[in-house]
Amino acid sequence: MSYQPTPADKFTFGLWTVGWQGRDPFGDATRPALDPVESVTRLSELGAHGVTFHDDDLIPFGASESERDGHIKRFRQALDATGMVVPMATTNLFTHPVFKDGAFTANDRDVRRYAIRKTMRNIDLAAELGAQTYVAWGGREGAESGGAKDVRAALDRFKEAFDLLADYVTSQGYALRFALEPKPNEPRGDILLPTVGHALAFIERLERPELFGVNPEVGHEQMAGLNFPHGIAQALWAGKLFHIDLNGQNGIKYDQDLRFGAGDLRSAFWLVDLLETAGYEGSRHFDFKPPRTEDIDGVWASAAGCMRNYLILKERAAAFRADPAVREALRASRLDELAAPTLEPGETAAALLADRSAFEDFDPDVAGRRAMAFEALDQLAMDHLLGVRP
Amino acid sequence: MSYQPTPADKFTFGLWTVGWQGRDPFGDATRPALDPVESVTRLSELGAHGVTFHDDDLIPFGASESERDGHIKRFRQALDATGMVVPMATTNLFTHPVFKDGAFTANDRDVRRYAIRKTMRNIDLAAELGAQTYVAWGGREGAESGGAKDVRAALDRFKEAFDLLADYVTSQGYALRFALEPKPNEPRGDILLPTVGHALAFIERLERPELFGVNPEVGHEQMAGLNFPHGIAQALWAGKLFHIDLNGQNGIKYDQDLRFGAGDLRSAFWLVDLLETAGYEGSRHFDFKPPRTEDIDGVWASAAGCMRNYLILKERAAAFRADPAVREALRASRLDELAAPTLEPGETAAALLADRSAFEDFDPDVAGRRAMAFEALDQLAMDHLLGVRP
Amino acid sequence: MSYQPTPADKFTFGLWTVGWQGRDPFGDATRPALDPVESVTRLSELGAHGVTFHDDDLIPFGASESERDGHIKRFRQALDATGMVVPMATTNLFTHPVFKDGAFTANDRDVRRYAIRKTMRNIDLAAELGAQTYVAWGGREGAESGGAKDVRAALDRFKEAFDLLADYVTSQGYALRFALEPKPNEPRGDILLPTVGHALAFIERLERPELFGVNPEVGHEQMAGLNFPHGIAQALWAGKLFHIDLNGQNGIKYDQDLRFGAGDLRSAFWLVDLLETAGYEGSRHFDFKPPRTEDIDGVWASAAGCMRNYLILKERAAAFRADPAVREALRASRLDELAAPTLEPGETAAALLADRSAFEDFDPDVAGRRAMAFEALDQLAMDHLLGVRP
Amino acid sequence: MSYQPTPADKFTFGLWTVGWQGRDPFGDATRPALDPVESVTRLSELGAHGVTFHDDDLIPFGASESERDGHIKRFRQALDATGMVVPMATTNLFTHPVFKDGAFTANDRDVRRYAIRKTMRNIDLAAELGAQTYVAWGGREGAESGGAKDVRAALDRFKEAFDLLADYVTSQGYALRFALEPKPNEPRGDILLPTVGHALAFIERLERPELFGVNPEVGHEQMAGLNFPHGIAQALWAGKLFHIDLNGQNGIKYDQDLRFGAGDLRSAFWLVDLLETAGYEGSRHFDFKPPRTEDIDGVWASAAGCMRNYLILKERAAAFRADPAVREALRASRLDELAAPTLEPGETAAALLADRSAFEDFDPDVAGRRAMAFEALDQLAMDHLLGVRP
Repeated sequence: MSYQPTPADKFTFGLWTVGWQGRDPFGDATRPALDPVESVTRLSELGAHGVTFHDDDLIPFGASESERDGHIKRFRQALDATGMVVPMATTNLFTHPVFKDGAFTANDRDVRRYAIRKTMRNIDLAAELGAQTYVAWGGREGAESGGAKDVRAALDRFKEAFDLLADYVTSQGYALRFALEPKPNEPRGDILLPTVGHALAFIERLERPELFGVNPEVGHEQMAGLNFPHGIAQALWAGKLFHIDLNGQNGIKYDQDLRFGAGDLRSAFWLVDLLETAGYEGSRHFDFKPPRTEDIDGVWASAAGCMRNYLILKERAAAFRADPAVREALRASRLDELAAPTLEPGETAAALLADRSAFEDFDPDVAGRRAMAFEALDQLAMDHLLGVRP
Repeated sequence: MSYQPTPADKFTFGLWTVGWQGRDPFGDATRPALDPVESVTRLSELGAHGVTFHDDDLIPFGASESERDGHIKRFRQALDATGMVVPMATTNLFTHPVFKDGAFTANDRDVRRYAIRKTMRNIDLAAELGAQTYVAWGGREGAESGGAKDVRAALDRFKEAFDLLADYVTSQGYALRFALEPKPNEPRGDILLPTVGHALAFIERLERPELFGVNPEVGHEQMAGLNFPHGIAQALWAGKLFHIDLNGQNGIKYDQDLRFGAGDLRSAFWLVDLLETAGYEGSRHFDFKPPRTEDIDGVWASAAGCMRNYLILKERAAAFRADPAVREALRASRLDELAAPTLEPGETAAALLADRSAFEDFDPDVAGRRAMAFEALDQLAMDHLLGVRP
Repeated sequence: MSYQPTPADKFTFGLWTVGWQGRDPFGDATRPALDPVESVTRLSELGAHGVTFHDDDLIPFGASESERDGHIKRFRQALDATGMVVPMATTNLFTHPVFKDGAFTANDRDVRRYAIRKTMRNIDLAAELGAQTYVAWGGREGAESGGAKDVRAALDRFKEAFDLLADYVTSQGYALRFALEPKPNEPRGDILLPTVGHALAFIERLERPELFGVNPEVGHEQMAGLNFPHGIAQALWAGKLFHIDLNGQNGIKYDQDLRFGAGDLRSAFWLVDLLETAGYEGSRHFDFKPPRTEDIDGVWASAAGCMRNYLILKERAAAFRADPAVREALRASRLDELAAPTLEPGETAAALLADRSAFEDFDPDVAGRRAMAFEALDQLAMDHLLGVRP
Repeated sequence: MSYQPTPADKFTFGLWTVGWQGRDPFGDATRPALDPVESVTRLSELGAHGVTFHDDDLIPFGASESERDGHIKRFRQALDATGMVVPMATTNLFTHPVFKDGAFTANDRDVRRYAIRKTMRNIDLAAELGAQTYVAWGGREGAESGGAKDVRAALDRFKEAFDLLADYVTSQGYALRFALEPKPNEPRGDILLPTVGHALAFIERLERPELFGVNPEVGHEQMAGLNFPHGIAQALWAGKLFHIDLNGQNGIKYDQDLRFGAGDLRSAFWLVDLLETAGYEGSRHFDFKPPRTEDIDGVWASAAGCMRNYLILKERAAAFRADPAVREALRASRLDELAAPTLEPGETAAALLADRSAFEDFDPDVAGRRAMAFEALDQLAMDHLLGVRP
């Protein structure tokens, strides 16, 4: 297998990823700004399917209307020239000092109103460019100290903003859905909706929950020590995996945004296995930062690595699932039994109570001695991941 | 203030807390078994309101029916003698080897059926003893390796079990509601429904969501590095804080179950502030483990400390909220603005778009220079916590 | 007690702390640059003893010689006018892109030579300004990927640099000692000498170990989940606590640099207790970042809070140690026995073997039942911390 | 390649690893006790080189002298029959309640004396069985609360114990060296000597430091979020890697003791690369726990997996180092320059000061633009790990 990506693989990249200049909390930029048109072109050459953007990635904050039009026009031309698509867009509600206490949940009411307007403006552009998903990362919605934010009030404001945006998208007839992106902390001490679970729960209290799903990011969940494929599985189970951000992270620490495959490789294997077997049809979107040690060649090497690693893992996961020995091992571990309902069709509580085999005649000591045989199964997975199965 | 608890404070303890014998992964028990009757009596003397239990705390696993009746009778007598109540009960679905791969989501179907039956049996007892809340901690519902659990199938099974139990409780006419207790890991490598958020989201997919809320535990959320009061606030916001487990934890590591107040003290302050100002009316339930260095006197000292620390923090939080300087600081930080809707009454997206003051005439640079004044506010909170405000 | 600091309290601040403009990985500066002279003046007014600096804090990178002289002259005048001292200085070896792969351990040899020269230059200035301690934080000495750094070779280079600097300081007759500052990660994926322990061990392989100690920072050790007072105790035990960086951190996450007292308050209590009872005589140096939500008033409020919190905790720790009930509790927990040698004076292995009371006649079961009574002791500490002891 | 281990691979296992019965903080044993003789036999059949043991693994705590002799005799016979060796032994100073507050640093002096005697006794047996390394894991040396342990006094006691043991080993003429095993926490809230660095530093204050090295365990360092290969590199650099414990861990949480290869696979690759290229000649010792979901077949599958994974990674690391493209990439990343001294032979501080090319004529802006090319190098490593290099 060649591991050479094509647009059919649906790999997409944020303009801000390859365009990251390497400014970090302790250091200045190590790379010059990258023209979005250059990014579109090079990513297309590497085999990508499309790009995504924050408003300010494409149009510098504070640009005039005519400058804005110019930026959009050049960008469209690059898309047209390459056949690249824009399946997702989002709003930068975190860089400018005005958002230092948040955007939709800022204590300052006028900041909240401004943030919604900034978002509406970019939603128009997103729809115009054909995006189907609008991501909302509330990176500044949070606090460093306990008195600074009334979280219940903040959730009211969060809901208010999203309900309005959903009304707007509906009234405009845009074919856009929202994907909320959770993150536990950084840049705020604690961020609201810190995990996939919190975001999924929040969505259920919105007026139009059907328009909202999640955009989980590998590193964000791993910053809370959570099992990323488990979180994705719950999002899929809830019908809410609207988008995904792929990258790498080495455990609980600052947000690393390594290229996909770096960081927890075994978790990446199970993630790809899950996405591919669950029939996820959205973009495989990379939200990473090429380390600031790299020059522009390193940027493209890093971007290419993201796609290559996905394709290698996809091949390995497919081989794992196809292997008869694996199928046998899955049966030995009773994954088939897990797939079967616990109750008989139509069985009620009363019927279960009447089934003596379920309790009175069930011997827990005997059942407790049964082997689950997970270690043999997991070693088969390791063998497939490493490519040593004959 | 005396910090002497009374039943009106609604402090409750699990029998398994003071009864923990100190067996840990690397060591044997350091304390003898504690008679539940002794626990009821001593906790009552210390000022507690009630006790809670797992079935196996009260009735040893495998006891005969007549033994069972004897244990229940003695327990009831102790309750009657002391006036202690049983507001909550729960099932032990984790100690016996039969649950090594889980209970409601075990791969083995007969184990799942047995687990539901074991739960139904104790629900009957819980109802009989007057409990209003039935806690479900799925400590073994999880996996150590990626192939061992199909999480989507497991969530189907989880839902199936809870739907059946809700039917049962309803059909029996019990005034019981369920409170799901999340935990990220330990004893399994990763546990399903790892955080308050994941549990809240799951509940929305059940057949009778109104019967289900959460039972967050301080240390469990902190094991994922999450801000506990933030999680509680989201649970309250969703109307789902059915019960709470108070204890202490020193950051991301194994589950410590320290007495309440130990661990993150500032977080405990904000938690008590939240519970008291939000009008939470449930038990203040301590789920802690007196360290195995302690003898039985240390156990009671530790239990008394839990309650004492809550009362001290309650006093301090009340003083914080009542202080005019704090009220002024909250206004300076615009908490009052956060409490106000972002939109005018009835304001639509179109109306917001027409408001030039919200965007076109809004100067983000000026707004970005406004002080949030959170440090002064937080220092006031610190002063109140430490009792140094004049 | 007034909690009003005076120079006798030896509180010092880095120029970069109050001068931090609030630029973070996701956001632009929220505060204008602060003139070092202003910082000296305001900190003096607040009661501080002195300031510390990186070369580039005082003299912008790339300044000409005459500009440099001008900056130094103004700074000296401010020191003279206020009586503020400069007990410590350090080198910025992390902001400029040239240090993107490290300084003393950069793969590029010319970068390493440049870094040493930049350091020597500022050592001259530090000595001139009367500093006794020169801090070395190797924030860029590390890697994001396994092949990028040969750690053993890098440690050779690290040693080479410090050996040369020690020679230089000695040959110049400077009364300067070095304090290595450990940090586990951020801005590099993993940083060399990640904890106090690793730095202490490294020092023992230098040519002049007597000139080297450590400069532990609260948050840095807590980013690895380590007990900060424990690390300080080991540094004191080794005679190597040459300097200390006080701040706050909420557990394992990005480097927060909160004001002292924020974050883990109980740990801060035990830290102050340790520093004060161990007779630590160095500066109480604050290395924190006023959150970017603050304006300049918030900066000074935050700086004042650092000192105030230290003084409150100092008072509380002193009361704890002076309380007869605490002394009794310490005896009940056998802290006095811990202070006594395990062996009799001159006792040899042979003599211990001959002591039947130590083994053959020792009953571990009886000893294992003794109470350690740590919970009662810890509750006394809590009572003192919260100021509720009568 | 077959990945079939042989004794030449020097794989060893603790008796307590395969013998772990699956008792965890929330659950009872799921497997029966395993006869040490059975373990020796089966591990030998699987290709292991030897076994290691705690005293109580081989001889139940409290056994009589004659029972003790019987256990030792049977064990020796199994070793003789299989050709298995015992390169390491250690003392159980953590299971019995007598050690609940520690062993060498317990507050109780008689417990400390007993612990030393228990250790001396097993040192005799270790020497008799031909062990070259004696491991000391001080799992109970620590505390849950700040007042419970005076860490400086405890380090005095720790030193006293090890100095005595070193005297004893020397006086007996045993060819034994000690290897200290660090761990940050669990079962104590915080453990003394929490990381490889802290242990290395402590050793330098002992009377016979040459007899002491470290026994780092993969999961223990990863429980503090530290880079394991980095810690091993520092131990090797210090000449102190006397032994190593291989296993797997999924980040910062409770101690998982997964089989080697599970957990952080990329870190395991770099670890094997380091051990093999550094010429480490000691045992490759597995200290893992087969999950309690497994029966005895799963135990052996898990043990076999440890060895298999090591051999696969060894093969892949060797291929990585041999690949001309990798060598070129290492040069492009200037690893060769890192291997070269920073200073010219004999170059002094004065000479460096006189070299204008090092500072005055050095252009940091130009140097700052050089690519480090780490991403390309790391992708080559990934390709080798996954076996996709042609």
